Amino acid sequence: MNDIVYVGRHSLMHNVSRHAHESWEFVYCTYGTGTFVFDGSSISYKCGDVVIIPPMVPHSNASEGGFRNIHVNMTSPRLTLKKPALISDDSNHFLLDAFSAVCFHFYSDRKQRIALLSIYGDLICCYLAAYQTVQQRSAVVERIENDIIANYADCDYELDTYLRSLPFSYDYLRKLFQKELGVTPHKYLTDKRLQIAAEALVNAENSGSTIADIALMCGFRDPLYFSKLFKKEYGVAPSFYPKARQQADNQQSRNAGSVRIAVEDA
Amino acid sequence: MNDIVYVGRHSLMHNVSRHAHESWEFVYCTYGTGTFVFDGSSISYKCGDVVIIPPMVPHSNASEGGFRNIHVNMTSPRLTLKKPALISDDSNHFLLDAFSAVCFHFYSDRKQRIALLSIYGDLICCYLAAYQTVQQRSAVVERIENDIIANYADCDYELDTYLRSLPFSYDYLRKLFQKELGVTPHKYLTDKRLQIAAEALVNAENSGSTIADIALMCGFRDPLYFSKLFKKEYGVAPSFYPKARQQADNQQSRNAGSVRIAVEDA
Repeated sequence: MNDIVYVGRHSLMHNVSRHAHESWEFVYCTYGTGTFVFDGSSISYKCGDVVIIPPMVPHSNASEGGFRNIHVNMTSPRLTLKKPALISDDSNHFLLDAFSAVCFHFYSDRKQRIALLSIYGDLICCYLAAYQTVQQRSAVVERIENDIIANYADCDYELDTYLRSLPFSYDYLRKLFQKELGVTPHKYLTDKRLQIAAEALVNAENSGSTIADIALMCGFRDPLYFSKLFKKEYGVAPSFYPKARQQADNQQSRNAGSVRIAVEDA
Repeated sequence: MNDIVYVGRHSLMHNVSRHAHESWEFVYCTYGTGTFVFDGSSISYKCGDVVIIPPMVPHSNASEGGFRNIHVNMTSPRLTLKKPALISDDSNHFLLDAFSAVCFHFYSDRKQRIALLSIYGDLICCYLAAYQTVQQRSAVVERIENDIIANYADCDYELDTYLRSLPFSYDYLRKLFQKELGVTPHKYLTDKRLQIAAEALVNAENSGSTIADIALMCGFRDPLYFSKLFKKEYGVAPSFYPKARQQADNQQSRNAGSVRIAVEDA
């Protein structure tokens, strides 16, 4: 369990003098830029970055143009960091949502505030673990991927219009996306829609959805076109997919079972 | 641990026929209105509402004008509900943020997605517990309180302008707020700023902030005016507050200690 012991949200500031504290500090920059200086190292950050400072690490913070930061101090987070680190929120802003909620609940007197704060503490630490590893995708590829996942359900979503709205050439973006994710943005969108449709088909018995409902829910206005694409990708028509998958799952668990038995026999 | 087994986001729909499933279902309405019909009861919902349906409860869902809903199906949430229930997100939209994040992570292949989904499941259940009890505040009072907590740090925040922007008379809102929270909105804002300043003062040794920094951080551009208000509320000047509070805390723990000893002796 994370214990959030202090939360502060600063107006525009230019300097915080050198200090240290017993708790972990998580600093989300909501405006401007700045540089944290530690003994023998420094981290420069910009809007959307989070700087994590382990306990008892002296630090100062300065900026020419100024910054607005949210500070969250936590005891006993599940983190193994030894040195200060920086991670960046992505275009979904999930980390900003979490920091904003923490700001609210820390100073509200609503029910369940302690439980909520503790869960948000876990959430922030989990995002740190997710984002801390070396970024394997460019920020712009991640942004395109996020936009696709946010809009796959919209039959009127125009991926081309979105790509052309970005400050890079259309061809460069297509190639960069393909290089990093193995498929073009358009193929990625279609694959994602079909993948989500496949899950929905398996769930259809429980949800009362028809194949036309599911096609629409995954951004296909024309159920016939959907069925054609689906069959091409999964080898069976949408209406047979749940049964085919169950058979494949059964086969797999039988195989997994025999592997286990073999290992136990060995 | 919550296991999120299915997530769906619907395009505009008018009907979902009667069905039941083994998992819990959480339905967030993002557009329109609708009515869930159960055996012997029904729940009407609108944009911003969440309907929670326990396992194996048959339900259908219909609407004249249509709805767009996010469905999250979960196994083993920590909930004791026996019957379907409705809760409403408030103007902070924290529940919508959580449902949106679940939609994203369920269909992404990012690192830590299983851990993140599980934490968001906990978060949604915790909000249900927080919001499920009978509302003790009107929606508009909650909205004003949320706006105050969101803006206390802004020296230029004009509470009057905000109150006058709401679709109720200014005097009615002042009276309703006072009736439900015991103070006027303006006193609530000042109290909240001073409360946050008090926490920041206690933390100041660790954070390197001056009293002028803290005043500014809590929406007071003039540190002298802040000090005057603070002294009136807490009985000591801001610079003496940390010491005074520590003395009070020590006294309290001594008293608590002697009570404990007395009980052990008894």
